[in-house]
Amino acid sequence: MELATETHVRVRYAETDNMGVVYYSNYLVWMEVGRVELCRALGFEYREMERQDGILLAVAEANCRYLAPARFDDQVIVRTWVEKANRRMAMFGYEMRLAGHDVKLAAGYTKHLFLTRDMRPASLPEKYWSMFGIRAANASYDRSTVSR
Amino acid sequence: MELATETHVRVRYAETDNMGVVYYSNYLVWMEVGRVELCRALGFEYREMERQDGILLAVAEANCRYLAPARFDDQVIVRTWVEKANRRMAMFGYEMRLAGHDVKLAAGYTKHLFLTRDMRPASLPEKYWSMFGIRAANASYDRSTVSR
Amino acid sequence: MELATETHVRVRYAETDNMGVVYYSNYLVWMEVGRVELCRALGFEYREMERQDGILLAVAEANCRYLAPARFDDQVIVRTWVEKANRRMAMFGYEMRLAGHDVKLAAGYTKHLFLTRDMRPASLPEKYWSMFGIRAANASYDRSTVSR
Amino acid sequence: MELATETHVRVRYAETDNMGVVYYSNYLVWMEVGRVELCRALGFEYREMERQDGILLAVAEANCRYLAPARFDDQVIVRTWVEKANRRMAMFGYEMRLAGHDVKLAAGYTKHLFLTRDMRPASLPEKYWSMFGIRAANASYDRSTVSR
Repeated sequence: MELATETHVRVRYAETDNMGVVYYSNYLVWMEVGRVELCRALGFEYREMERQDGILLAVAEANCRYLAPARFDDQVIVRTWVEKANRRMAMFGYEMRLAGHDVKLAAGYTKHLFLTRDMRPASLPEKYWSMFGIRAANASYDRSTVSR
Repeated sequence: MELATETHVRVRYAETDNMGVVYYSNYLVWMEVGRVELCRALGFEYREMERQDGILLAVAEANCRYLAPARFDDQVIVRTWVEKANRRMAMFGYEMRLAGHDVKLAAGYTKHLFLTRDMRPASLPEKYWSMFGIRAANASYDRSTVSR
Repeated sequence: MELATETHVRVRYAETDNMGVVYYSNYLVWMEVGRVELCRALGFEYREMERQDGILLAVAEANCRYLAPARFDDQVIVRTWVEKANRRMAMFGYEMRLAGHDVKLAAGYTKHLFLTRDMRPASLPEKYWSMFGIRAANASYDRSTVSR
Repeated sequence: MELATETHVRVRYAETDNMGVVYYSNYLVWMEVGRVELCRALGFEYREMERQDGILLAVAEANCRYLAPARFDDQVIVRTWVEKANRRMAMFGYEMRLAGHDVKLAAGYTKHLFLTRDMRPASLPEKYWSMFGIRAANASYDRSTVSR
């Protein structure tokens, strides 16, 4: 596997704040944009998993370190990958850079639980396993231990 | 009827933009806050209408005129009232002022259709009529024609 | 002139609400995205007008009619054009459609005043006139009266 | 010191998403609401520090663990305190609970650097030290080591 996607987002005026830079919660929205793109690249539509299989990817934790400010109209590249995954949870990693410059804006991760529509723990259907790098029922994927 | 509510919102940093003032779409969010408060004052919880009766108040039109900028940490008073209503639709009016000052920030309206959960036109259940100033099945409420 | 741009935005999960559709204030954010693209197509960067000339495009009015709901992951086309303009103000028109379908989602307009950084009325510098269809100091552009 | 504030926010429809719960980035906005209230309780207005002293509290890291979902119209209590501080940085802690219920919704922290308006590291002016629990130029406040 070891797939990562790069998604471009252009900073909206709506996303800036009184300091003239992007307000900090918007990086979590960009992470979502990157995550949805990564899922598509991995071979499934996030919304179909929700509609067809009734599986939600509920956020359990989000973390972002802010390294340099982004400003209105900047082109931001959101790099996204699966950091860890097993049948119960998935962890995504993110890195945001300014397009055309060697500037790292932010880095972070989100941890998610697979849930049913009524918000109870679910087990990821087998058809999705390989997309998350999971090989068997007991197996978990961990990017850091995968030989690259 | 002729009820109007006044709701206080304090400007969040998240709501400001690069110009140092509140970004224009946030006034529509404040209208929602005022609308929900008005519904509560009229005697029903917006979310119960949605949960119990399956009636959604879908927005058909929104309008806002911006008169003076609001800034971070300002206290804003959102005045909200029913402008018109019948069994098919309701129109709310809004006025935003700066608390403690005689400054009108914005004014506007939203028009809503009563819809079922699957987004089809619904007829407002009779128990809600009086809250919207509707007196009979064919009647419509129009604030501008009500003697005050 | 008679230039219109078409900008694509993909609906973010962040933009949806409890009803399963896009929350109504987000259409105004998409209008901004369309407006910035239109400015770029007309030959100037919105942020440079702000930085270099100290001219802000402050919103005076916004209007949106909602015709059909947009949902998570939908591709939305935002069509944007200058509806009217003179040295004091500009009015933009918008139409949102669902990509790949003949479904009109929303239509609206925004009116803007040219302001200085300290929020006082400004006169649009001459170098920008032609971009807005303005021909002379007293002239105003009105799309509806332009022979097409 | 050891001051903590409790701020109430009512969940806006705008803050919910397609899952019927509050979208995850909005918890960071509530943290900001709590932080601003805490600053006020500590004896200074956040916006005055920015206006008068030109000191910005730029976010360096944000973390949130999501424990239970919040829904439209819920009353949320945001408990906020200073976790650590010295002249260069401040770290705030947060806990969100559902009002009237013993349900913890989320917990997290934010780390901030004191910056000048042009985004360079600043040293917190002495008049603010005591508010952050800082006693001397070299001192740092750490809640976990303060005898309570």
